[in-house]
Amino acid sequence: MGIKTKEEYIESLRQMKPTAYMGGERITNIVDNPRLRPGIEATGATYELAQMDEYSDMMLTHSPLIDEKVNRFTLPPGSIEDLVARVKINRTLGNWMGTCHQRCTGLDCLSALSIVTYDMDQKHNTDYFERFTDFLKYVQKNDLTCNAGVTDVKGDRSLGPRQQEDKDMYLTVVERRDDGIVLRGAKAHQTGSLSSHEIIVLPTRALKKGDEDYAVAFAIPNDSPGLIHVVGRSSLDNRELDGCDIGNIRYSKYCPTVIFDDVFVPWKRVFMCGEAEFAVDMVVKFSSYHRQSHGGCKSGKIDCMTSAALTMMDYNGTNKAGHLKQKVIDMIHRAETLYGCSLAASYEGTKEASGSYFIDTVLANASKIHEGKEMAEAIRLMVDICGGYVADLPSDKDL
Amino acid sequence: MGIKTKEEYIESLRQMKPTAYMGGERITNIVDNPRLRPGIEATGATYELAQMDEYSDMMLTHSPLIDEKVNRFTLPPGSIEDLVARVKINRTLGNWMGTCHQRCTGLDCLSALSIVTYDMDQKHNTDYFERFTDFLKYVQKNDLTCNAGVTDVKGDRSLGPRQQEDKDMYLTVVERRDDGIVLRGAKAHQTGSLSSHEIIVLPTRALKKGDEDYAVAFAIPNDSPGLIHVVGRSSLDNRELDGCDIGNIRYSKYCPTVIFDDVFVPWKRVFMCGEAEFAVDMVVKFSSYHRQSHGGCKSGKIDCMTSAALTMMDYNGTNKAGHLKQKVIDMIHRAETLYGCSLAASYEGTKEASGSYFIDTVLANASKIHEGKEMAEAIRLMVDICGGYVADLPSDKDL
Amino acid sequence: MGIKTKEEYIESLRQMKPTAYMGGERITNIVDNPRLRPGIEATGATYELAQMDEYSDMMLTHSPLIDEKVNRFTLPPGSIEDLVARVKINRTLGNWMGTCHQRCTGLDCLSALSIVTYDMDQKHNTDYFERFTDFLKYVQKNDLTCNAGVTDVKGDRSLGPRQQEDKDMYLTVVERRDDGIVLRGAKAHQTGSLSSHEIIVLPTRALKKGDEDYAVAFAIPNDSPGLIHVVGRSSLDNRELDGCDIGNIRYSKYCPTVIFDDVFVPWKRVFMCGEAEFAVDMVVKFSSYHRQSHGGCKSGKIDCMTSAALTMMDYNGTNKAGHLKQKVIDMIHRAETLYGCSLAASYEGTKEASGSYFIDTVLANASKIHEGKEMAEAIRLMVDICGGYVADLPSDKDL
Amino acid sequence: MGIKTKEEYIESLRQMKPTAYMGGERITNIVDNPRLRPGIEATGATYELAQMDEYSDMMLTHSPLIDEKVNRFTLPPGSIEDLVARVKINRTLGNWMGTCHQRCTGLDCLSALSIVTYDMDQKHNTDYFERFTDFLKYVQKNDLTCNAGVTDVKGDRSLGPRQQEDKDMYLTVVERRDDGIVLRGAKAHQTGSLSSHEIIVLPTRALKKGDEDYAVAFAIPNDSPGLIHVVGRSSLDNRELDGCDIGNIRYSKYCPTVIFDDVFVPWKRVFMCGEAEFAVDMVVKFSSYHRQSHGGCKSGKIDCMTSAALTMMDYNGTNKAGHLKQKVIDMIHRAETLYGCSLAASYEGTKEASGSYFIDTVLANASKIHEGKEMAEAIRLMVDICGGYVADLPSDKDL
Repeated sequence: MGIKTKEEYIESLRQMKPTAYMGGERITNIVDNPRLRPGIEATGATYELAQMDEYSDMMLTHSPLIDEKVNRFTLPPGSIEDLVARVKINRTLGNWMGTCHQRCTGLDCLSALSIVTYDMDQKHNTDYFERFTDFLKYVQKNDLTCNAGVTDVKGDRSLGPRQQEDKDMYLTVVERRDDGIVLRGAKAHQTGSLSSHEIIVLPTRALKKGDEDYAVAFAIPNDSPGLIHVVGRSSLDNRELDGCDIGNIRYSKYCPTVIFDDVFVPWKRVFMCGEAEFAVDMVVKFSSYHRQSHGGCKSGKIDCMTSAALTMMDYNGTNKAGHLKQKVIDMIHRAETLYGCSLAASYEGTKEASGSYFIDTVLANASKIHEGKEMAEAIRLMVDICGGYVADLPSDKDL
Repeated sequence: MGIKTKEEYIESLRQMKPTAYMGGERITNIVDNPRLRPGIEATGATYELAQMDEYSDMMLTHSPLIDEKVNRFTLPPGSIEDLVARVKINRTLGNWMGTCHQRCTGLDCLSALSIVTYDMDQKHNTDYFERFTDFLKYVQKNDLTCNAGVTDVKGDRSLGPRQQEDKDMYLTVVERRDDGIVLRGAKAHQTGSLSSHEIIVLPTRALKKGDEDYAVAFAIPNDSPGLIHVVGRSSLDNRELDGCDIGNIRYSKYCPTVIFDDVFVPWKRVFMCGEAEFAVDMVVKFSSYHRQSHGGCKSGKIDCMTSAALTMMDYNGTNKAGHLKQKVIDMIHRAETLYGCSLAASYEGTKEASGSYFIDTVLANASKIHEGKEMAEAIRLMVDICGGYVADLPSDKDL
Repeated sequence: MGIKTKEEYIESLRQMKPTAYMGGERITNIVDNPRLRPGIEATGATYELAQMDEYSDMMLTHSPLIDEKVNRFTLPPGSIEDLVARVKINRTLGNWMGTCHQRCTGLDCLSALSIVTYDMDQKHNTDYFERFTDFLKYVQKNDLTCNAGVTDVKGDRSLGPRQQEDKDMYLTVVERRDDGIVLRGAKAHQTGSLSSHEIIVLPTRALKKGDEDYAVAFAIPNDSPGLIHVVGRSSLDNRELDGCDIGNIRYSKYCPTVIFDDVFVPWKRVFMCGEAEFAVDMVVKFSSYHRQSHGGCKSGKIDCMTSAALTMMDYNGTNKAGHLKQKVIDMIHRAETLYGCSLAASYEGTKEASGSYFIDTVLANASKIHEGKEMAEAIRLMVDICGGYVADLPSDKDL
Repeated sequence: MGIKTKEEYIESLRQMKPTAYMGGERITNIVDNPRLRPGIEATGATYELAQMDEYSDMMLTHSPLIDEKVNRFTLPPGSIEDLVARVKINRTLGNWMGTCHQRCTGLDCLSALSIVTYDMDQKHNTDYFERFTDFLKYVQKNDLTCNAGVTDVKGDRSLGPRQQEDKDMYLTVVERRDDGIVLRGAKAHQTGSLSSHEIIVLPTRALKKGDEDYAVAFAIPNDSPGLIHVVGRSSLDNRELDGCDIGNIRYSKYCPTVIFDDVFVPWKRVFMCGEAEFAVDMVVKFSSYHRQSHGGCKSGKIDCMTSAALTMMDYNGTNKAGHLKQKVIDMIHRAETLYGCSLAASYEGTKEASGSYFIDTVLANASKIHEGKEMAEAIRLMVDICGGYVADLPSDKDL
């Protein structure tokens, strides 16, 4: 118990037995799979840096809830300082690994739940906040990684969940039992679901009266019976499988679709069930926290690309070319814009009824709108600076 | 003494007798001149809001230096809170008046001096910091407005001050006397110089060994002998003089060029004289603070334009047009970006040796780069939303 | 008769007696008014260049209609060559004068009418094309300038013409007589209406069955009884009236609102009356031609601004500054984009049933979308390059 | 001889025996290789469409040189019509296949050579133009595909060819013999070199006196002794090799680096050798033609992406979402801008001394500058419209 080392984290994943498929085949050894391991390494870095003298002060903090030191990725923000720390550790990690560490989404879910479960209890006399707090203690004590099961498959976006022809387009409560509920459907874009100990599910959109079966939030282990992780394709996944011509040789990400084939969740792990009018709160809280996270990690990734561009300029002998230096400045400017808006959203945060701190959503949106454009533009600038060989260099096997 | 009301401020200006010209004519009554008064009203709003219940907490604070309540525009930042307050009061004022209140530049000078005079003393055993502190007490006790005399005329930008053919291109110390120094040259873009009690002069650029005569900082009353304010043209100045077809009927700005025709400055008002190697510090500190200020006031102005655009949409019956709503969102996004980066630069500020707080310059630059583009784009969007009558409406006299 | 010199053009305007107001006062001598004359000079340049050896081949062509040489501004395009010439003369003139010559809109109306009057006749057995052709001969033989009376005041844009509370929001046929029709309403943004001999009126928007009274097109002299030109304000109009601190001392523009106070139009000058279903054609044809024109003149104006920027770089000694040269390249790029899309729209034009040539509207729209942004950005870049004195230089009277 | 069918084209490639490597292995059967075949199919489409009734008029034309019908990809432009046709066939093909057909670069080389060989002869009394014309006849009579060997590896961009530490950074004449010359070095980014019959080599940059050994142009079969094609990596190449999860299942591209390991070229195939001062002309002519080509093919690719985006909107039920429709309009606008500037550059082309037509370079550059940004932005918009499944859909093998 307590703070895990990277090795302990990986060992703990090895103990889990999720059902996983990739490329039409069942994967039994998740941890050593060459396509999945770099993603696990990326999440692993959130454990690794927490043990390094240079970063441990940034990564670890005291949790009043369990009165122990915890990794910040298990701590819903209880102060402005906590909010700001979220952005800074994300930038540090983005810069460190040049890709997604995949542990922010779980914290974004924990943070949203820490507010909305309390608010639901106030209105409905439910005990969601207590259930959630028990779960949170368990997460903190064991330094667990959680995954965000938010995005439903959705089908026809012009229709609501009940109007879909294919009933599996939205995750649904198909049975309410004495001991818990049974879920059917799927969640898409589950970045790092196999690098996580727990899958936290939230609703994907605002819901109306009548949509009660879709208004559901809960947490379950990633190897719960009926859960099926189908790892999706990504551009360069084969290179990892081949072990050749890999750009980022240490870190990567992967995104399964997670299918819920009548998965049972005990009541103590259910944090919302039927309160359709709170779905919008859950979505807004989660996505706002997530936008704030992105302002950190994406600026870190641009930092990393800027360094790559500068290295290539050295290599190509173009480091005195004025128009390329201007492009580097442009890249830095884009990183700082994301970061600045996300930091401001944090510093301007406010305390919610439950005691958690929530960000300024207008400023977090400003960061988000930039993110959508600036990342693409930063990549274009990097490629522009680096030159054509980025696109068609012969294989390491040829060299 | 102490906090002035707007009326006291205007009355205090009435007591001053600066030498001023506009359109080839001498202006004797500055305060009642229809072209200058709206600018004085704009600065006056910084006094007016300080007296209003809604804003006084924001505008006023306690000065440890004189142990009295002071207007924030006389207080170099002594904490992160002070830095943040600068951005917020600028946004509030920009939104309130839709133009420039013109009092930020003086505070930007005071803030820069509060750091660099101290640093110079450490190196050169001078007593600039003490002289400056005396001046600052005087400013605070009398709630004075200061103006920033920073930008020299410059002439040929590819040459340094000494290489200029016309020796008046950079403000120069032409005589060093026992009781003080004599200055010759001019400072351009002196927004609000006639709305200010004091003119603070700083160097305009980095200087080298040999440039000692240009390395000068000081403060003098705006009606000092030899000082000549020549009010420049602005697009719509005639409308104010005519009292007709004025867009912003309450507030405006004007920008004189201030000529120094052998102006004497006593030593106690000289805050730098010959320390060429500190010129770059002075410029960087001033301009960084000024960029931070702009992140506040310019976002406030975009707020004001957004409101104007929404009003016109109501008026034109276009308030349900999706493409116009998208443009309004775009305007808001631009305002929040400026504001977010400027806020972040403030929250991430650090303490200098003198005790003053300085901003994060990278984030302030991010705000500045956006400002250069976003204001122009926000104006274009506003005009686009409002339609053609903005450009060619018949005169009020015709209507 | 025949091609006019600039002097003959101005003299011909002097013979007209339009009813005009500006700043609440009646203007009787239009031609010598210091606010209006630079606009007349701008249109005058379309006559002046036609007499210059360097430009006459570009400006003049043979009209098959009257079998005489005519100024191209009186010739609806009868070939791809004519379409292309429109863009090129507009760029040349934009570059020559740095502002709007104001004669393109009349040609855009003539061009639209040369197509749509023919199409209406085919469907309705009317004789609009013959009436229009008679008018066109008169225009060509006398080298007249026409103005485009297109934009109605419109009122509430969410409502159609008949739903407006104020019935004068759209120009309406209020009486149909044996000898002609009577019009009431107003047309806004009538750039150069007092520099024109004739006012051509077209509908301002698509119309429906029931809107017949708004479906009207015609041409009348600018001094017709009941026509009232109210010259609107523009940013720097007072400087022209004062004769001081004028930026462009030779050329300018002005935009009246033209009020139709029960104006009579004889049938032979009526080119559409009641054919509501053709209103959309008229609008699309006019505005597409007008977008094509803008691709020429606006790129010419950017040329002019680019030259101004380069001159200021020389003057400031910044002509070797890499970041400013980059901005100049950016300005040129924007000009060429507008021009390129407009040229392509011309070369890809096609022949209409009447024999006139019409442009490719998709490419003309591409030019238009750029125009909306590139002009504003080109101005910003120019100001950026030139520096602050553009905004607040002292008056010539002071210098 | 004469126009080839697609099948004949592929069969003719099958007869060639180039030395090729990919992923560290020698490839003997080029034509049936699953990674190379879709690239060959793409070039094959230039033969296929030439046989289709709908496109043959566009793709085929009469060559005065051999007095036969030829595919336009073998014809240097001899008229404005030819220049315009280049843009239109490229757009059609880009739209047809959604990727690069790879046959434009050869034509760009032929077009540049058709001008510069003539100009060199005029100055130096050489017979390059005659040699080139013989080669061109051979290309036209056999409907061959040529590849552009332009880009050298370059090494340190701050140094010229002679200053490079590694002498193989620029392709060099290492021996001049009675019967021809011997070349050493490499050319990078040789898109489609194995889909081509001939490799045409031009200099990669402006050269100075002393650089004579780098001033070389020639043409040789792709299976010449000493030529080694090393196929580089591209993002999704493994999917083609696996035959699964391929996005564009019919067409693709690949980019070898082509190594010249002392390759012999007979004099009749040498079109420049030592005329260093003409290197800049060759580069400018080639790259200007190539920019013009891109204005066509890239707008065609955006057309294809726009259709994909619209299909996804249908599929997702988002085809009425205003903000997505706005993005589609934005995509179309970008395509038309590229196309418009490129068309204008063509229509404004002029005749060179040799009789070939060359484009307007300023307008071609305007197209190029847009291409650099608009393609990336169009892709971003498409992804934005389509949603996240574009990034991480499970494999076909899983489905």
